[in-house]
Amino acid sequence: MEEIYTARLNRVCKELEKEGLEQMIVSDPLSIRYLTGVWVQPYERLYALHVRTDGKHCFFLNNLFVIPEVDLDKIWMADTDDCIGIVASRIAQFGSEKAVGIDRNWPAGFLLELMERNPKAKYVNASVCVDRVRSIKDAFEQEKMRESSRLNDACMEKIAAFIKEGMTEKECADQVRALFKEAGVTEGFDTILSFGANAADPHHEPDDTRLKAGDCVVIDMGCVKDGYCSDMTRTFFCGEAPAEYASIHDLVRRANERAESIIRPGVRFCDIDRAARELITEAGYGPYFNHRLGHSIGLQDHEPGDVSLANTACVEEGMTFSIEPGVYLPGKFGVRVEDLVLVTKDGCEVLNHVDKNWKIIG
Amino acid sequence: MEEIYTARLNRVCKELEKEGLEQMIVSDPLSIRYLTGVWVQPYERLYALHVRTDGKHCFFLNNLFVIPEVDLDKIWMADTDDCIGIVASRIAQFGSEKAVGIDRNWPAGFLLELMERNPKAKYVNASVCVDRVRSIKDAFEQEKMRESSRLNDACMEKIAAFIKEGMTEKECADQVRALFKEAGVTEGFDTILSFGANAADPHHEPDDTRLKAGDCVVIDMGCVKDGYCSDMTRTFFCGEAPAEYASIHDLVRRANERAESIIRPGVRFCDIDRAARELITEAGYGPYFNHRLGHSIGLQDHEPGDVSLANTACVEEGMTFSIEPGVYLPGKFGVRVEDLVLVTKDGCEVLNHVDKNWKIIG
Repeated sequence: MEEIYTARLNRVCKELEKEGLEQMIVSDPLSIRYLTGVWVQPYERLYALHVRTDGKHCFFLNNLFVIPEVDLDKIWMADTDDCIGIVASRIAQFGSEKAVGIDRNWPAGFLLELMERNPKAKYVNASVCVDRVRSIKDAFEQEKMRESSRLNDACMEKIAAFIKEGMTEKECADQVRALFKEAGVTEGFDTILSFGANAADPHHEPDDTRLKAGDCVVIDMGCVKDGYCSDMTRTFFCGEAPAEYASIHDLVRRANERAESIIRPGVRFCDIDRAARELITEAGYGPYFNHRLGHSIGLQDHEPGDVSLANTACVEEGMTFSIEPGVYLPGKFGVRVEDLVLVTKDGCEVLNHVDKNWKIIG
Repeated sequence: MEEIYTARLNRVCKELEKEGLEQMIVSDPLSIRYLTGVWVQPYERLYALHVRTDGKHCFFLNNLFVIPEVDLDKIWMADTDDCIGIVASRIAQFGSEKAVGIDRNWPAGFLLELMERNPKAKYVNASVCVDRVRSIKDAFEQEKMRESSRLNDACMEKIAAFIKEGMTEKECADQVRALFKEAGVTEGFDTILSFGANAADPHHEPDDTRLKAGDCVVIDMGCVKDGYCSDMTRTFFCGEAPAEYASIHDLVRRANERAESIIRPGVRFCDIDRAARELITEAGYGPYFNHRLGHSIGLQDHEPGDVSLANTACVEEGMTFSIEPGVYLPGKFGVRVEDLVLVTKDGCEVLNHVDKNWKIIG
């Protein structure tokens, strides 16, 4: 197996040991790709990597999966096999005295069946052991994250120039997809493209609403380049900027910049959220900023590691996450300003370079 | 709440009672839409419908979700709330003496946390209580399933006419998406479009391989119309059909037709699989038909209810599933012929009408 994968698996094993664990069922296909280079989209079929601190890892695979040569034990199963029975006996072979680590997104159906087969074992959510390793991007990954955001920046500039009064949200979202395709990347998540009052729902889905003068235009978009995700939001105004909304935009942008200015290794995620939230709260819009400040990102658009008041962990060099304050006035207007940042030795590098002051388009 | 939803919820409650359960956490967003009309894409956030046999159902929601008016209790939570703590106490309120039903795809992380909060309760996979209700399509749903397949048929005819020697798999798959868009529907799953030896992998992803004379062309495509899925596979040949492969195609088509001919209420899923598999096995290709014969379908492309040797349940009127035998010769060739069927009072209605004999295209 390539050295990079062996090294990553070893780091996960060290994390397992820290948690007092000897084995773990890793089921997230992206984590498995990160740890082995193997990519499978299993749908409802069982697919897992059994990671053991003694290094005797193995794959649980369905006959239907096609995987490249990889130097790991493989247990192939058919649709008609007692798949969880096979997993249970492999776990028991290694001993079930210590708790068995489970990936957070493993379907409950599999877990409940495993618990029935090995009722004496204790099972714990051990995803954090993989998360911690995945959260620190190495030099190769950092460059991929930069590249993905560079491409996202270029497409944001193009879509801002494309949007005109009278177009529908759907047309504009289609154009984002076309721009991504032209750039040779795929859309990372359903683009959010909201006009006027629709923008008051942070997760509004593009519909047939037409853009008119005075509307805000929220564009939240991201692409995937070589497996690595970008994610950025900019808010523009069509034709003219109503004074109240423009000043709210300034507030949100300042909240974004204030949060970014304090990021460095050792600062807590919750304090970064607080820095932005306080500014918005002091201006009287606290109740209208109804989500966390950001989320970690990498191979997946949303990775564990919230930038929220609830996360007291400290940021570390090599982490990448979003900073995306917003203010949403139901029935009226919404604004969000989002960048990705990469934590450096003594600060952070903002991965997006599209101007974040409000701007008239259309 | 609309009558249709009340009726569906009542049917789920009856199924819960049959299983000796009084409450269940339904977390599949499609099941929740089916039972309430509410659609939310929660990503990593907690989203669930707490179904109770006393009818006092409630929603667990995040402040970020936007939902229509619906006559059900709602418990709104923020990103910083102790969400599982809230769920645990609501479950305990109703009493945890009987086992608590859990949806099969609920992330293990939530379940493990719930188990820690309410350690005395027993948890069981109760998805079957929802599956059984969802599996029987009512007249409205049946018409939607027909319509979705009608549109899929039309797009299949168009893509077969479009494909020419020298085109790449990716170009052709892009054209399928364009055809779906033109028809006002969305792509239900990543279209499989495989040429020649690539088709030996049943789940091959379209790449830059160019079509050449003598190649088989496997097209597995489906759309979503008003929430209901279609799914069909046809295999063609470019320019000419190598005799061996053409005869394998005939075999697979006959396996498909044989299976479809025996479908009626009361027949077991495993016997339908066996009918097709025996024919292929007798011809000596048994080891090359390495997947189940089919899967149930409806609001989701793959719904619980395998047409496989392992499923001894009987089919019932109103069920919809795929019949998709295949033969895959590694490094050489692959063929699959797939229709959707709807079980009627005394047989089945095949929802696809595209000719399934092999045909020369390109």
